[in-house]
Amino acid sequence: MTWGTIATWRMAHDGVLKAAEMLKNKETAGDAVESLINVIEEYPYYKSVGYGGLPNEEGIVEMDAAFMDGDTLAQGAVGGIHNVLHAVSVARKLSNEHYNSFRVGEGATKYATINGFKMQNMLTDRAKKRWQKKLLELKDESVTPYDGHDTIGAITLSEAGSMAAATSTSGLFMKKAGRVGDSPLSGSGFYVDSEIGGAAATGLGEDIMKGCISYEIVRRMGEGETPQEACDHAVYPFVKKLKKRYGKAGEFSLVAMDKDGDWGVATNVEFTFSVATSTEDPQILIAHPSANGTTMIEPITQEWLDAYEKRIKAPIE
Amino acid sequence: MTWGTIATWRMAHDGVLKAAEMLKNKETAGDAVESLINVIEEYPYYKSVGYGGLPNEEGIVEMDAAFMDGDTLAQGAVGGIHNVLHAVSVARKLSNEHYNSFRVGEGATKYATINGFKMQNMLTDRAKKRWQKKLLELKDESVTPYDGHDTIGAITLSEAGSMAAATSTSGLFMKKAGRVGDSPLSGSGFYVDSEIGGAAATGLGEDIMKGCISYEIVRRMGEGETPQEACDHAVYPFVKKLKKRYGKAGEFSLVAMDKDGDWGVATNVEFTFSVATSTEDPQILIAHPSANGTTMIEPITQEWLDAYEKRIKAPIE
Repeated sequence: MTWGTIATWRMAHDGVLKAAEMLKNKETAGDAVESLINVIEEYPYYKSVGYGGLPNEEGIVEMDAAFMDGDTLAQGAVGGIHNVLHAVSVARKLSNEHYNSFRVGEGATKYATINGFKMQNMLTDRAKKRWQKKLLELKDESVTPYDGHDTIGAITLSEAGSMAAATSTSGLFMKKAGRVGDSPLSGSGFYVDSEIGGAAATGLGEDIMKGCISYEIVRRMGEGETPQEACDHAVYPFVKKLKKRYGKAGEFSLVAMDKDGDWGVATNVEFTFSVATSTEDPQILIAHPSANGTTMIEPITQEWLDAYEKRIKAPIE
Repeated sequence: MTWGTIATWRMAHDGVLKAAEMLKNKETAGDAVESLINVIEEYPYYKSVGYGGLPNEEGIVEMDAAFMDGDTLAQGAVGGIHNVLHAVSVARKLSNEHYNSFRVGEGATKYATINGFKMQNMLTDRAKKRWQKKLLELKDESVTPYDGHDTIGAITLSEAGSMAAATSTSGLFMKKAGRVGDSPLSGSGFYVDSEIGGAAATGLGEDIMKGCISYEIVRRMGEGETPQEACDHAVYPFVKKLKKRYGKAGEFSLVAMDKDGDWGVATNVEFTFSVATSTEDPQILIAHPSANGTTMIEPITQEWLDAYEKRIKAPIE
């Protein structure tokens, strides 16, 4: 039987390897997507998710996360949670609640504490240095504070035909306290329906939520479009519309997988992602927007991967 | 030229009267929708919006609100904000920000304070009494804590052809701290596009967000459905789907208006609303789900209104 998983950014790859193993072993879509994201949340060198994530302007690492069960449409989400190692696991537990399944700020942190989740200071030395450096740079007003916003967004399909979606992010670097992006927002940051497929987003949440793009991709797959067609048709016309109506469009990238394990992506920037299915070995790919509202997808080069590895571990000066 | 406004619940009516006057006088859709909601936020006898709204389980009135400009698709939202009289006005101001336009918890309250919004204790004596009474009742475990969740959701269309949408609510009575519903969530609680129309929701946010129903209604209007068709087609099949997949469906009701001032509603409960357009005098109507996925809409009776007035002002014993 078919299984599969796709997730945003190169950083997702170790998580995709883990989720692929689990799905191959007939574990559930929910367990696989949570484990996929937990791997990224724990890794200190990714500066936009979990431990090592960059803080808000006050120096606090505030995280957004969500989980959706494609069988039942149950959702759980947290916004602006802090001091919690696995925000996505808190979101998943919340998805079992019919009421109060989306919790923010202190209320979210309280829920995590009461329910026994691992609490830890999420601000690494590296992240603190970056924050302090940015505070100095911001004295020069030409510097924009918001240059990092890479969410991990992932979809899984189990052998049993169940699907799940999840997201996790520390949000915009130097964001204002309590800023929430698209990641915990149904239809914007994520959406999944096991009878159709799922989609998840990364990028400037404020613009992604103007178009409910994850919902729109799943809806289009439900009308018979392939995941790639659905991504292309949902993303590129919306980028145009946003430029025309709002005057500008932030960066964003979407991944999608359908119930057969077929997948697609669309992006208005250079975008890496990781994918594995029962018929495709786990791989990192790189996508760019192409002509006529389509997406160009290529294998990642070793050169790119080496430069990335060097970049994320470079000393903070 | 055409103008119009529609809003959820009988409580919206005084706001609709005010918005209708403004729209008749060629004021903007944004100003009209904000004023409409401000009227409700100030009125102490409505127990689910603004001043007089019922508190969370800790006794704190935490509010959710949103504003969307249908011309630019700009959005602003707050979740779990407290001590602020006009949550929707804070949301509207946030819609001017490209970054950090959705703020929650303490961060949202900070933003309101710094930007000079009127702060006040939102817990009225009546609301405090209801909360204390409910705390006693909850010692009997058969009582469900969550029996009130009436959001004000409104759409406006100006003579100039601009549209706006906004929501405001104190959310579920006895909710957990930091619980956020659909009201501040794009596509779930609200959505508007001046070239198509707008929609807004009230009901159990946790279930509304499982379907992105406001977005779906606007999308259907964009494909040529009338507002009533779009509401019927988006709401009733989704109620069925939710019962099948999730095992149950909370109460929810949607209102919609298109760019020509035509309107529609759909609901799975008894649902009152208020509407006014350049060709229809302001009126309160009552809707019920009807056969074959349609909606029955009737004028409200004086008897209903009298009973309502008595109910909302009855002594709390």
